[in-house]
Amino acid sequence: MSDFDPPMATVRELVQRALAEDLGALGDLTSVAVVPADARNSARFVARAAGVVAGTAAGAEVCRQVDPALVVSWAAADGDRVGGDDEIGRVEGPLRSILVAERTALNLLGHCSGVATLTRRYVDAVDGTGARIRDTRKTLPGLRALEKAAVRAGGGFNHRESLSDAVLIKDNHLGGLPLRDAVERARARWPGRIVEVECDTLEQVAEAKAVGPDLVLLDNMAPDQVAEAVAVLGGSLPVEASGGIDLGTARAYGEAGADFISVGAITHSAPALDLALDLE
Amino acid sequence: MSDFDPPMATVRELVQRALAEDLGALGDLTSVAVVPADARNSARFVARAAGVVAGTAAGAEVCRQVDPALVVSWAAADGDRVGGDDEIGRVEGPLRSILVAERTALNLLGHCSGVATLTRRYVDAVDGTGARIRDTRKTLPGLRALEKAAVRAGGGFNHRESLSDAVLIKDNHLGGLPLRDAVERARARWPGRIVEVECDTLEQVAEAKAVGPDLVLLDNMAPDQVAEAVAVLGGSLPVEASGGIDLGTARAYGEAGADFISVGAITHSAPALDLALDLE
Amino acid sequence: MSDFDPPMATVRELVQRALAEDLGALGDLTSVAVVPADARNSARFVARAAGVVAGTAAGAEVCRQVDPALVVSWAAADGDRVGGDDEIGRVEGPLRSILVAERTALNLLGHCSGVATLTRRYVDAVDGTGARIRDTRKTLPGLRALEKAAVRAGGGFNHRESLSDAVLIKDNHLGGLPLRDAVERARARWPGRIVEVECDTLEQVAEAKAVGPDLVLLDNMAPDQVAEAVAVLGGSLPVEASGGIDLGTARAYGEAGADFISVGAITHSAPALDLALDLE
Amino acid sequence: MSDFDPPMATVRELVQRALAEDLGALGDLTSVAVVPADARNSARFVARAAGVVAGTAAGAEVCRQVDPALVVSWAAADGDRVGGDDEIGRVEGPLRSILVAERTALNLLGHCSGVATLTRRYVDAVDGTGARIRDTRKTLPGLRALEKAAVRAGGGFNHRESLSDAVLIKDNHLGGLPLRDAVERARARWPGRIVEVECDTLEQVAEAKAVGPDLVLLDNMAPDQVAEAVAVLGGSLPVEASGGIDLGTARAYGEAGADFISVGAITHSAPALDLALDLE
Amino acid sequence: MSDFDPPMATVRELVQRALAEDLGALGDLTSVAVVPADARNSARFVARAAGVVAGTAAGAEVCRQVDPALVVSWAAADGDRVGGDDEIGRVEGPLRSILVAERTALNLLGHCSGVATLTRRYVDAVDGTGARIRDTRKTLPGLRALEKAAVRAGGGFNHRESLSDAVLIKDNHLGGLPLRDAVERARARWPGRIVEVECDTLEQVAEAKAVGPDLVLLDNMAPDQVAEAVAVLGGSLPVEASGGIDLGTARAYGEAGADFISVGAITHSAPALDLALDLE
Amino acid sequence: MSDFDPPMATVRELVQRALAEDLGALGDLTSVAVVPADARNSARFVARAAGVVAGTAAGAEVCRQVDPALVVSWAAADGDRVGGDDEIGRVEGPLRSILVAERTALNLLGHCSGVATLTRRYVDAVDGTGARIRDTRKTLPGLRALEKAAVRAGGGFNHRESLSDAVLIKDNHLGGLPLRDAVERARARWPGRIVEVECDTLEQVAEAKAVGPDLVLLDNMAPDQVAEAVAVLGGSLPVEASGGIDLGTARAYGEAGADFISVGAITHSAPALDLALDLE
Repeated sequence: MSDFDPPMATVRELVQRALAEDLGALGDLTSVAVVPADARNSARFVARAAGVVAGTAAGAEVCRQVDPALVVSWAAADGDRVGGDDEIGRVEGPLRSILVAERTALNLLGHCSGVATLTRRYVDAVDGTGARIRDTRKTLPGLRALEKAAVRAGGGFNHRESLSDAVLIKDNHLGGLPLRDAVERARARWPGRIVEVECDTLEQVAEAKAVGPDLVLLDNMAPDQVAEAVAVLGGSLPVEASGGIDLGTARAYGEAGADFISVGAITHSAPALDLALDLE
Repeated sequence: MSDFDPPMATVRELVQRALAEDLGALGDLTSVAVVPADARNSARFVARAAGVVAGTAAGAEVCRQVDPALVVSWAAADGDRVGGDDEIGRVEGPLRSILVAERTALNLLGHCSGVATLTRRYVDAVDGTGARIRDTRKTLPGLRALEKAAVRAGGGFNHRESLSDAVLIKDNHLGGLPLRDAVERARARWPGRIVEVECDTLEQVAEAKAVGPDLVLLDNMAPDQVAEAVAVLGGSLPVEASGGIDLGTARAYGEAGADFISVGAITHSAPALDLALDLE
Repeated sequence: MSDFDPPMATVRELVQRALAEDLGALGDLTSVAVVPADARNSARFVARAAGVVAGTAAGAEVCRQVDPALVVSWAAADGDRVGGDDEIGRVEGPLRSILVAERTALNLLGHCSGVATLTRRYVDAVDGTGARIRDTRKTLPGLRALEKAAVRAGGGFNHRESLSDAVLIKDNHLGGLPLRDAVERARARWPGRIVEVECDTLEQVAEAKAVGPDLVLLDNMAPDQVAEAVAVLGGSLPVEASGGIDLGTARAYGEAGADFISVGAITHSAPALDLALDLE
Repeated sequence: MSDFDPPMATVRELVQRALAEDLGALGDLTSVAVVPADARNSARFVARAAGVVAGTAAGAEVCRQVDPALVVSWAAADGDRVGGDDEIGRVEGPLRSILVAERTALNLLGHCSGVATLTRRYVDAVDGTGARIRDTRKTLPGLRALEKAAVRAGGGFNHRESLSDAVLIKDNHLGGLPLRDAVERARARWPGRIVEVECDTLEQVAEAKAVGPDLVLLDNMAPDQVAEAVAVLGGSLPVEASGGIDLGTARAYGEAGADFISVGAITHSAPALDLALDLE
Repeated sequence: MSDFDPPMATVRELVQRALAEDLGALGDLTSVAVVPADARNSARFVARAAGVVAGTAAGAEVCRQVDPALVVSWAAADGDRVGGDDEIGRVEGPLRSILVAERTALNLLGHCSGVATLTRRYVDAVDGTGARIRDTRKTLPGLRALEKAAVRAGGGFNHRESLSDAVLIKDNHLGGLPLRDAVERARARWPGRIVEVECDTLEQVAEAKAVGPDLVLLDNMAPDQVAEAVAVLGGSLPVEASGGIDLGTARAYGEAGADFISVGAITHSAPALDLALDLE
Repeated sequence: MSDFDPPMATVRELVQRALAEDLGALGDLTSVAVVPADARNSARFVARAAGVVAGTAAGAEVCRQVDPALVVSWAAADGDRVGGDDEIGRVEGPLRSILVAERTALNLLGHCSGVATLTRRYVDAVDGTGARIRDTRKTLPGLRALEKAAVRAGGGFNHRESLSDAVLIKDNHLGGLPLRDAVERARARWPGRIVEVECDTLEQVAEAKAVGPDLVLLDNMAPDQVAEAVAVLGGSLPVEASGGIDLGTARAYGEAGADFISVGAITHSAPALDLALDLE
């Protein structure tokens, strides 16, 4: 189990669904018609663009489920940077099986590596500022575990995995309830858990400071507002900047003193890393 | 059932998984702690950017599964263009239930609408050329049915749904086998089905013309090569351009005479459409 | 819940799978292309041949899962005999939904009614002899609950539902172990459960009589051998005839004194009852 | 992967369900009570009647899931003809495991081989006429992939795998819409896909010829009507005969010039091939 | 397959769910952070209290699903008595994998062994009286197969596995219907199956005797009432005592002549056996 | 959604499995044979012993899945104390459906209420000491969400929901690594998450104090050791006592100053609350 592996029970189930989806009721018409049943081959997973690898556990599971006779080995591990044309791994075995596995394996590797690559770009953008890049719950349905693992492979960190592992109080929850009361209710109901508070204004930040949650999430603030908020808090609480941050502005948020910068785009809008499977 | 609905059996299962994933074992800590059990509210799904809507069937299913007491209505249908701040729909009912449904519904709507929006940009780019935009099998695992429906909502067309519904012969299948033999084998094994042939060179196009598949897929050719291939074929076969086509070059492919332009990016690399749920 | 309903939890899951299987990733291409979204219609489930109805609960569940707006009503209940052209039921609602539900509903109704119809033919064949027709574990994978319910609808009775509800000792289990020992082990391990013994010869029948199981299953015996076996047993034990019995010979087995006649063919080889859905 | 293997992801899931269904909560009462835990044996899968083998991949998967210690080998491959008493394959290992696997493996092999055998009879019946036998969507719920593979093993061909892979316009879709309009809508909505048209009369055939779909399906026509329809079409379109065709009439349809003959009975009404597992 | 193994298909599915539940979306935060990826270890499953072992098949399956590189061996088999500090088994392999498997394996082993241990205490309590301890349908949802196997490992016997394997007529079913009629209906509808009758009074016992079911279940009677009932029945029918029986009173029921004593508590209220996994 | 409801997606899936398990392939033999199809009734869920109610959402879901015609209403809510013979709720509708739902509903309600009741006894035992009772990951496989909700209904609090929501460093993770390094690695890998440290000795407590995790878990210490540890920590860190704590000793731990007392027994060893369904 590497540092960047998603839980295997989840991977296994996802791969089963993905293969069912891609094979339909008849299987691979083309291979059955054109490729001899006894043809064997080897093939290389190759990057067509520079990026960060992720999803190798899922890629290997695809091969295993398609045909236990396929042998997979990786030249790159999750988290490794690769350049265009770099080999990521190899698969050997019956050619029909390789061709059946190809697209599903590439779809998983490409998406996970895309998430890792975009995460890494944000991580690099804030390098030296002390800020850390975090994901959100804005993940693609059914793919959260893989995407969160890919974020880590890209050098990022995981925020909440679900509604169930931390309290995050937003305006929508309050409905007129004073923030202090809300935090107290949360502490009372879920003692020993992280309680975070979302603030849209400096007044709210000051109020949050007085109340004392575990973290203040600054929503849709400009970098200079973040800097002011950090000043207001005076180091009393960690600060997370969130909302509308892109690669062009991320560094400014880091320099403004945000401890965390959360970016929904690294999971919901990451372009796939361009990968291919080259037969030898 | 609208023209752009994915099969409901698939939607139901995906939403069940997505909710399980987002709720974890404890459910929504924050709402339970902070929001009164009897609070009711209404909220608006709103676009924060211009785009094309898709995924409303999935969004409605999320609300239904979270709480049958939630009432959803849509101001926009799948396929509609919306501008920033346009209302897409509304949900009314118990506030806790609205907040539980929010993220999963937005994740689905945002991704589907993102696919539809990017598809529409390609469709608009080739407008008037006669070319049609098609998707590929490069979809995100578990989301194929929703993404293919979103492609249609964006004005695109669906290529193969799985390995099982058409033959597509690529270099990897041939391994020295003459193309003619491969097509004959495919016709013999799968009579009455579409047989497509991928060509990388004009020589292969000429060979394909002689063999007579149902479509020629031109892989990674520049627009002028596509034009030459179209000339070679002389209208005898429909032509699909594929590989490395982006928004900047798509029109040139259409003008070169491609009947179809397939773009993996509309499913594997579509940024989410920015949507929000605003409480009233 | 009628007398012939299979467990609904099982039906629901089977219908979900059946619809996923029949709709693929894109759904019903034809209806979406050709039928207006707002067209409504009613249609009649009609028998094209005489038979016994079964599977209405599954048929209704198909309609419910395809579209809650479909309204189904039945003119015939499970277990009813119908003649060619008799109406079995009706469905009303959006035409696209009717057409999507049609094939899956007919496949389920046709198979269940086929099982019920063939069962009924056997039941009628032994009418008056006192023998009862029973099914076996020779059911189609995934369809056991529906098939066993259909057997009852056809006037038959259910033998074991699984390996788990009764002991049935065959030659393969013995491997040299005396029958008495085997029955004693079974009684000791599973007290209070039915213990049945399969016999191939009259010697075994005599041995079984001495041992005293709950039932003797006569495997592949001719009717006159069955009569002899019944005479040997002298009413001390119920007798089930099994193996190679067809519609032409069933009555002879009943007249030979078999209490039960088990017929694998009523589940594994029942031709579908010819049904159609006629639009109005 | 042989030419006649169904997708393994589907097989695995079906076998898991089939075993759960047959084992119930307690497992095999009889084996546990009567057979020593350490008994080992070998057994032969044997045909009791002549036919065509199919379903070996599913049979092997049953053994694998019951006990990885079971070793299976096949003497016959899917598609092979066997005579009564011919050995199909062997399984060796713990006797309890063999007995647990027996019924589920035989149910799958028997049904698939039954489908293959009946298909083969139709294929043989039309031998030399040039007609090919095709299946339909009239498959047993949950078993489509296995049945379609078995049809191929029997020498037949696969028609649509789902509603999602080709357009087939029937009377029910039209509701007054001219056929030309319907085909145009289908071509517009689903370009690059097969569009088939069902005709009940020669007038419709003539209309279809004018419109130009990819195939004409002649529904419930007598062989001489089919011959007329073929004459009307004059080779312009492939022709599929469908509806009410049985072993006695199939050849006449082939001689009438049908390119395809589709027969629902080969999947929905195929009697199981009589197979047994003989212990050695 | 040992005598006390639950069906493996059920175990596999349960373990998959249990691991998904315990790993969440991120997996084991602690191991990933603290334990080197290449650390290997061995560990001993150890009893912290005396009891009877059960659930080893499930425990082994947990290790297999977490990491095929884990090697498990058992020092004790299901059904064995162990004392405090006795080793039950060992697991060797990657330390991260051991720690991920630990809790789920212990939860399964501890619960199954708890059921076996409590069952054994009841079995021992009635030792020599001739009564056998049986379970009920009062099992924990999703765990029935494992609990029923554990009851056997503890020396107990299994009553009904589901509503589907025997008839048990209670007051709630009768609603004024005479018992004789009810039993006749049951015999008519489900011939060849066990029909049991629940009695609350001696009058009902006398009535039952006259009617002749396969077993009389005495509900909530004191031991002396049971003795009277046994006298009334005079050995004509087996008797099961049920309801409110605990370890202190069980023996009295055995001495009163009950053939079976069914105890819901052995499944629904068995405390877990205290087990631990000790690293070496 | 009440404060004590588990996530409905999880409940729905569990109930589906539980009903499949209890109904087998044939359904409720007894009701079908004995109870008229049109009989209707009402029935009361009644406590036979004093306790705390939990699991009503699951109980209602059972009725809904068995038969939408069943109407359920609750007299007690999750978290309410009830005395023996108190009514908890009522169900009305077809009698067969009530009887089918009965056992599964009672199994769920009885187990959840058992967990809530035992939790409440611990909560009452420490009343006034300031200590809070927490659960552990020692839950029954597949039932975690329901058990954790029941703990809350009993006045307890939830510790980790999975391995994925907090770091808890035990001896097994360290393997010679200094605690400080381990905590630093955890903080580095999972910033913004709770990091807990398990201590077995006062030396470790002192070390933990120096390192500064978010909580110290004192494993298997006697109350006076806990008091010493609390003194060592001097209020710098919250303290959780764990291991071998029972109802007799819990209060002593509270008085020793533990902030939390975690008790595996409330989930893995809670006897079911005795409940019944009384027909009217």
